[in-house]
Amino acid sequence: MPRNLTLLTDYYQLTMMNGYLKSGRDRDIAVFDMFFRPKGQMTYAVSAGLEQAVDYIKNLRFSADDLGYLKGLGTFSAEFLAYLKDFSFSGDIYAVREGEIVFPGEPILIVRAPLIEAQLIETALLNIINHQTLIATKASRVVTATGGGRVTEFGLRRAQGPDAGIYGARASVIGGASSTSNVLAAQRFGIPPKGTHSHSWVLSFDTELQAFEAFADSYPDNCLLLVDTYDTLKSGVPHAIEVFKKLRSKGHKPFGIRLDSGDLAYLSKKARQMLDEAGFSEAKIFVSNEIDEELVDALNTQGARIDLYGVGTKLITSENMPSLGGVYKLSQIERDGKSIPRMKVSDSLEKMTNPGFKTFYRVYDKTNRMAFADLIALRGEKIGKPLTLTHETERWKRTVLEDYELEEKPVKIFDKGKLVYDCPPLDEISAYRAAQLGRFWDEYKRLKNPHIYKVDLSDGLYQLKQILLNNADHGRV
Amino acid sequence: MPRNLTLLTDYYQLTMMNGYLKSGRDRDIAVFDMFFRPKGQMTYAVSAGLEQAVDYIKNLRFSADDLGYLKGLGTFSAEFLAYLKDFSFSGDIYAVREGEIVFPGEPILIVRAPLIEAQLIETALLNIINHQTLIATKASRVVTATGGGRVTEFGLRRAQGPDAGIYGARASVIGGASSTSNVLAAQRFGIPPKGTHSHSWVLSFDTELQAFEAFADSYPDNCLLLVDTYDTLKSGVPHAIEVFKKLRSKGHKPFGIRLDSGDLAYLSKKARQMLDEAGFSEAKIFVSNEIDEELVDALNTQGARIDLYGVGTKLITSENMPSLGGVYKLSQIERDGKSIPRMKVSDSLEKMTNPGFKTFYRVYDKTNRMAFADLIALRGEKIGKPLTLTHETERWKRTVLEDYELEEKPVKIFDKGKLVYDCPPLDEISAYRAAQLGRFWDEYKRLKNPHIYKVDLSDGLYQLKQILLNNADHGRV
Repeated sequence: MPRNLTLLTDYYQLTMMNGYLKSGRDRDIAVFDMFFRPKGQMTYAVSAGLEQAVDYIKNLRFSADDLGYLKGLGTFSAEFLAYLKDFSFSGDIYAVREGEIVFPGEPILIVRAPLIEAQLIETALLNIINHQTLIATKASRVVTATGGGRVTEFGLRRAQGPDAGIYGARASVIGGASSTSNVLAAQRFGIPPKGTHSHSWVLSFDTELQAFEAFADSYPDNCLLLVDTYDTLKSGVPHAIEVFKKLRSKGHKPFGIRLDSGDLAYLSKKARQMLDEAGFSEAKIFVSNEIDEELVDALNTQGARIDLYGVGTKLITSENMPSLGGVYKLSQIERDGKSIPRMKVSDSLEKMTNPGFKTFYRVYDKTNRMAFADLIALRGEKIGKPLTLTHETERWKRTVLEDYELEEKPVKIFDKGKLVYDCPPLDEISAYRAAQLGRFWDEYKRLKNPHIYKVDLSDGLYQLKQILLNNADHGRV
Repeated sequence: MPRNLTLLTDYYQLTMMNGYLKSGRDRDIAVFDMFFRPKGQMTYAVSAGLEQAVDYIKNLRFSADDLGYLKGLGTFSAEFLAYLKDFSFSGDIYAVREGEIVFPGEPILIVRAPLIEAQLIETALLNIINHQTLIATKASRVVTATGGGRVTEFGLRRAQGPDAGIYGARASVIGGASSTSNVLAAQRFGIPPKGTHSHSWVLSFDTELQAFEAFADSYPDNCLLLVDTYDTLKSGVPHAIEVFKKLRSKGHKPFGIRLDSGDLAYLSKKARQMLDEAGFSEAKIFVSNEIDEELVDALNTQGARIDLYGVGTKLITSENMPSLGGVYKLSQIERDGKSIPRMKVSDSLEKMTNPGFKTFYRVYDKTNRMAFADLIALRGEKIGKPLTLTHETERWKRTVLEDYELEEKPVKIFDKGKLVYDCPPLDEISAYRAAQLGRFWDEYKRLKNPHIYKVDLSDGLYQLKQILLNNADHGRV
């Protein structure tokens, strides 16, 4: 039951398509790059969303309803509506794998297709990949901060609509979360669902002890008790221990407790001590409540005793930076057999785009197999040995690498409209992210003042950009 | 083609339901309130999302696939799975209308249903209503700041997944936006779709002038030209004027220009002057780029000349506050014919809940028909005349109203599982919001240091709360 998302586009894409057709530009081939600009605290991103982007492209079809709706708007030519009737995507798409570690400015998705087709798909591709990449990146930051603690994605009730919950859970797992509270996402993507009980369970019984006993009775082998409904240390933990003792006497191993409010550093240390003294040193301490990477870091510093984290609102909305800022920019037009590179010239380097049909490489240092720098290059350009990497503006910053390994990151996904890529299952994607992230020094990943990873332009791309910049003329490039 | 969102719930809802059934609590009736806590700059909220919440409740059914999935998890009893097979919602739901102006602490949605049913629906109700209320509120703030300027919702590419774009567009219109760039949302909800062309249109031609001419040729009567691809004042606006003159000579009326970068205050004033001098004083100036209520306010202060606003990322993600923080709390349990009010006791008033089966009223001052205060009360409680309103904690703050009008805000939506409410069309909802908002003094709506609107407890509710607080006992309430 694929959803028809064909009209999930900006209206101007359709007005432009209609215009391209009218002005005889529909046979032009265009190259568009998707990349994101530097923003907020994000130094690297974890790419995600490709599988849903692929589904979207595969299912692109204007239904009779869609065509009727567009016709009724009175804006579009009969010729254009006839064109849409038979529309399917016929171009090439290259993209980085899901779970890939990527940096600002890199073309993480490249479309080479008839201009009129490439224009239609801009909006949905950005929507899908911006969102999942944002959440996968946030999850990776949180999971990295826990240093191996296990993270459950917990944010459905605060997600920005059903899809934000569903695909946000998926993206969280790509970023390193190990489970989710979201049953629909768990079902759809094979993620372990997790969760035990809420405050309302406790309040629905006359006493906390009755509530805990009833829960233990239902789940003797998965008994995680929420201990903060009344008073965590005076009531919740003692009652949990009382119930755990009964479970133990019947041969069950209690799972642990959950703290959802108060001073998590203090409470987790006290609760750990109480559990240990009662002989439940294997009982886990699970915390939730406004968790993000900064709080995890602060809890670590204070010696909090936490085994598991439930991460809700601040992950599922990426609260301190709720959008990635990915863009999709024209970099080449091919007309009458001629390729014309395009770029947006701007006063600020960040708003400038890179021209031409491109790819990018990760350059690994052969001596330690760690990532050294990335190199954005023209497609087909030869990368020499030794390799000189030069900063785009601060040209005196150069490094020569004698011995290196190159890995081209974007791979072909669609070839002339045909899907040529198998989307891997989610656990493989998550493992891929972990392996890739392991090839970056910790200095790039730390929360405070991280090293900025080098992303340079190849000689060929740099020269092309200079030529276009030097020939730039206001109103004509 | 309703989507099956039955599993769009937290896993713990299912483990609790299974537990309620096992401990013989499935016949208990529960009352849950949805309300939101004060957060960020938000002083009022615009309620939205009820229609999708209603659809969700109507379509609640566990499919064979769902049941097979749950069975496969190995956690749930055969009895519980059999119960789910025949599940449908059988309770009562009260909610405020979409477009209603609401305040922290007020029960904007009230569920009275078998505990086991009320528990299931918590997550999706919060997800849907939290999201749309958040975006409708943000839109209302932006639209209010424009003081009658027209706002197009523009954010699909940065929305948190497809639904965030689709329902975000819907919510934006409830909050006062008049159109959207999102074609799918426009189709589904009857919103006017808007948009003309992007930078890539301009870059795909050899010159800006050619690009503008081709666009004018396609859309002579809706010619809005994006003038900032090269240089707004030296190239974009002069080229637009050149094209507008040709259009005028052929009897067409040019629509205007769009500014998407740079200093919008300065550029809009200069562009206005240039357009006016060329005789195009009716041509509109449309701006986009990082617009939110604060920027609109700053642009107003600087005397910017702007007719229309395209509002993207910061609206569709509610960037400076990307979640509403709505919660769903147990307020009463009914067992063996006895009603037992429940509340969560906490050290902080904000985390405390209000017990009992409640409703709330807007109290209008009869002399001017403006909103004076809201009153949360027990359902069925008699509100006397004159009415003494007393602040919940600062008890010396009292006001006596001799003559007032009361309006009960929550209305009945589901009665014993049956839908008894007609969801109005979107334009009616938006008009309702405008009318309601008009009944609040501007002092409550301004961006900086707004007056805080009074929301007080009725005498009956206050007394009930005091009794529960005085009898509160750790581990037992």
